[in-house]
Amino acid sequence: MTKAQIGVYGLGTMGSALALNMAEKGFDVAVTNRETDWISSFVAEAEDLAEKLHPHEKIEEFVAALKVPRIILFMIPSGKPMDMMIDAIAPLLDPGDTIIDGGNADFHQTRRRSEELAAKDIHFVGMGVSGGEKGARHGPSMMVGGSDHSWQQLRQVLVAIAAKFDGDPCVDHLGPDGAGHFVKTVHNGVEYADMQVIAEIYGLLRYGAARAPADIGEMFVRWDQGRLKSYLVEITGKILQFSDPETSHPMVDVIKDAAGQKGTGRWTVVEAVRLGQSANMIEAAIGARSWSSEKDTRGTAQKILSGRRSELTLDEATLADAFLAARILGYAQGFRLLAAASEEYEWGLDYARIAEIWRAGCIIRSALLDDISEAFRGDLPAGQLILAPQFAKLLSGCIPALRQVVAAAASGGHAVPAMAAALSWYDTMRQGYGTANIIQAQRDFFGHHGFERLGEEGKHHGPWWE
Amino acid sequence: MTKAQIGVYGLGTMGSALALNMAEKGFDVAVTNRETDWISSFVAEAEDLAEKLHPHEKIEEFVAALKVPRIILFMIPSGKPMDMMIDAIAPLLDPGDTIIDGGNADFHQTRRRSEELAAKDIHFVGMGVSGGEKGARHGPSMMVGGSDHSWQQLRQVLVAIAAKFDGDPCVDHLGPDGAGHFVKTVHNGVEYADMQVIAEIYGLLRYGAARAPADIGEMFVRWDQGRLKSYLVEITGKILQFSDPETSHPMVDVIKDAAGQKGTGRWTVVEAVRLGQSANMIEAAIGARSWSSEKDTRGTAQKILSGRRSELTLDEATLADAFLAARILGYAQGFRLLAAASEEYEWGLDYARIAEIWRAGCIIRSALLDDISEAFRGDLPAGQLILAPQFAKLLSGCIPALRQVVAAAASGGHAVPAMAAALSWYDTMRQGYGTANIIQAQRDFFGHHGFERLGEEGKHHGPWWE
Repeated sequence: MTKAQIGVYGLGTMGSALALNMAEKGFDVAVTNRETDWISSFVAEAEDLAEKLHPHEKIEEFVAALKVPRIILFMIPSGKPMDMMIDAIAPLLDPGDTIIDGGNADFHQTRRRSEELAAKDIHFVGMGVSGGEKGARHGPSMMVGGSDHSWQQLRQVLVAIAAKFDGDPCVDHLGPDGAGHFVKTVHNGVEYADMQVIAEIYGLLRYGAARAPADIGEMFVRWDQGRLKSYLVEITGKILQFSDPETSHPMVDVIKDAAGQKGTGRWTVVEAVRLGQSANMIEAAIGARSWSSEKDTRGTAQKILSGRRSELTLDEATLADAFLAARILGYAQGFRLLAAASEEYEWGLDYARIAEIWRAGCIIRSALLDDISEAFRGDLPAGQLILAPQFAKLLSGCIPALRQVVAAAASGGHAVPAMAAALSWYDTMRQGYGTANIIQAQRDFFGHHGFERLGEEGKHHGPWWE
Repeated sequence: MTKAQIGVYGLGTMGSALALNMAEKGFDVAVTNRETDWISSFVAEAEDLAEKLHPHEKIEEFVAALKVPRIILFMIPSGKPMDMMIDAIAPLLDPGDTIIDGGNADFHQTRRRSEELAAKDIHFVGMGVSGGEKGARHGPSMMVGGSDHSWQQLRQVLVAIAAKFDGDPCVDHLGPDGAGHFVKTVHNGVEYADMQVIAEIYGLLRYGAARAPADIGEMFVRWDQGRLKSYLVEITGKILQFSDPETSHPMVDVIKDAAGQKGTGRWTVVEAVRLGQSANMIEAAIGARSWSSEKDTRGTAQKILSGRRSELTLDEATLADAFLAARILGYAQGFRLLAAASEEYEWGLDYARIAEIWRAGCIIRSALLDDISEAFRGDLPAGQLILAPQFAKLLSGCIPALRQVVAAAASGGHAVPAMAAALSWYDTMRQGYGTANIIQAQRDFFGHHGFERLGEEGKHHGPWWE
């Protein structure tokens, strides 16, 4: 019997889609699942791909069906289930085999698991997979963290199933242990920020200009033809033009304004704080989702806190420029975080390559990523994306629009937390001499913490102590 | 020989000040320190208080010198040193003795230590102490977390040494285990936010209106006579009027604009995220300090990113109202966090009482806290400070000024991250129907995550899946 080139454990939405994608590309795939009754129905529904899918109910048989050194991809919930499965499967494996966790995992856990398995000569790969179900089925973007040995094992399969951008596969080996999962975490943080900016722009037009959802949707469709071209803009354009089959109202009007979130957004913020960084647009997006879940409080507050949202006179071109500025700043914050983590954990991340593998397949794919990749390969003052010549120029053109939008929203009572955060960061970072001297003086005054004097090393205290 | 009522381990700035405070109030205090040569010089410098201070070099003698059940206050660095000292001292103690950690500690660690010591019938108290060195010496605000047994033991000493507000001592038993340290953590988060707002207002006047530091200082002195009366405003007024003895420049002009931070601010943000909350003003303040430390990058950015900070025409009354609004929102975010943690950890925090013990002694003491305490004892819609009748009214008067300031800063290129965050939160929370419906629609579109329909339970998918 033919040995399978790869095994997929976990036939949920993402696991099924990846297994089918592999089978379609001609690989023999061993498949199994904790609930064993799913397995045969999955294979049955695979139709002409079924012959490349080799179902096994027992884990020993699943492992035995794989070519050695083995590759086993787990697509299961992160956290404890992953640890339990490692404990169950590791005794069946041989040195040189690779286990891949393809779910969203906390990269600290991925680092721990890598280290624990390395002691048994088993390789562990933390792999970020983006693109949702459709991406997984027809071409996801994949961010691989693990050993060179594993990458050589995996490369052929992953390159075959990955999304392609002008023929370039959207997958690469980004670094050891937690590198892949952390890059995916930041990808999701940037995704949160971009989604929040889109929601804010929608709010300004809907409640500040009384535009109908379908009309706003058409605007996003137009934007998707230009500099703002991106998957999230594309789908927003589509979404806003749908009507509810039940009520015939615009679909978005019947959806509760309480957004869910999974772990990755929060992990991004927590890790940013740990690294002494602040990605305030991502924080704003996480915050907005948290506040959205306090719907009852907001209902009460609306009756008590005075002031309506006033009419705005922002034109589409201004909003588009403001969005572009905010999007650039959101990506820039994501890359800053990647740089901070890469330094801390010695991953040697290649930012240009990361931008490249995000150009297709993933949720944040956008026209901008090609320019970002180019910027990272070019002259980059202080390692900051916003200081790359082409981005500094782009920003100088569109920051005035962001100013106009944030100012109008502040005056008019419209909430734009992510766009306001973007501008706050931009205006802070371009101040060579800011206002933290005041904070240092206060800290010294009340806590004798000391401060540095400009241009002098060492700790000083103020004359208030004399 | 007289047994001491309390022992103080650790004679650094805060430990020394607290021991002297206790001695002055008539308590016999056993004192010791890791570096034993500090002990005798500390007692020698205590002058007429020396007779109440009982120095011991050996920990066994220090423990033996205490009345049973014993109270031992540790004022040492948090983290490992605390665990090491617990290991060293616990074998010398008897059931019913209490160890107090009076430093800033991560309340999760305090919970763990409480649990571990409880197994030996030893009580562990996590106590937040605010007020800096002067506060500790002459009257700090103290936030106690621990058992009732410990509180009965401690009460007399703590009430005696605490700051008094109209005779009411600024100390109380706030809840079990980590409650005291968490309340202190949030206190520090609110302190970060208030300091950041002050720095922002300074920046607007200095760089938007070319006002001299001493002149701005005089404004803060005036503000300290009115509704903004507070310790931080008071010291800012003083600080800004100091000149540098070396150069005769305004003192603040020679201080490097790179602010330090300790763990508590970051812990506040991380815990907020863990609890599904967002205290975005505190995040903004932490972020601003992080960015301040990237001074070289900012220097480079100033040359590359176009646009100056423009002149502003904001009058002092508008700035004062904006500050008041931001301050209220900062406190409100702090109290929301306290409520979320109190629910999660079942602490039963008394918010009115917390506001009361912050009225004197601590860094964030301000005229507003009396009103906050009153609000928490009165009718409080949805448990939200900003919805209390007196605060809703106050906000309706001063939010327009905050709008004006944030809009002017956004237009003029001045960074006001904390004030902008305050307004974003306020405007989000007063929208009964916000814009998270768009985010829910996107999540369902790309990830099949589902959403709730307005007024209906259960998970639905959009027509884009049909």
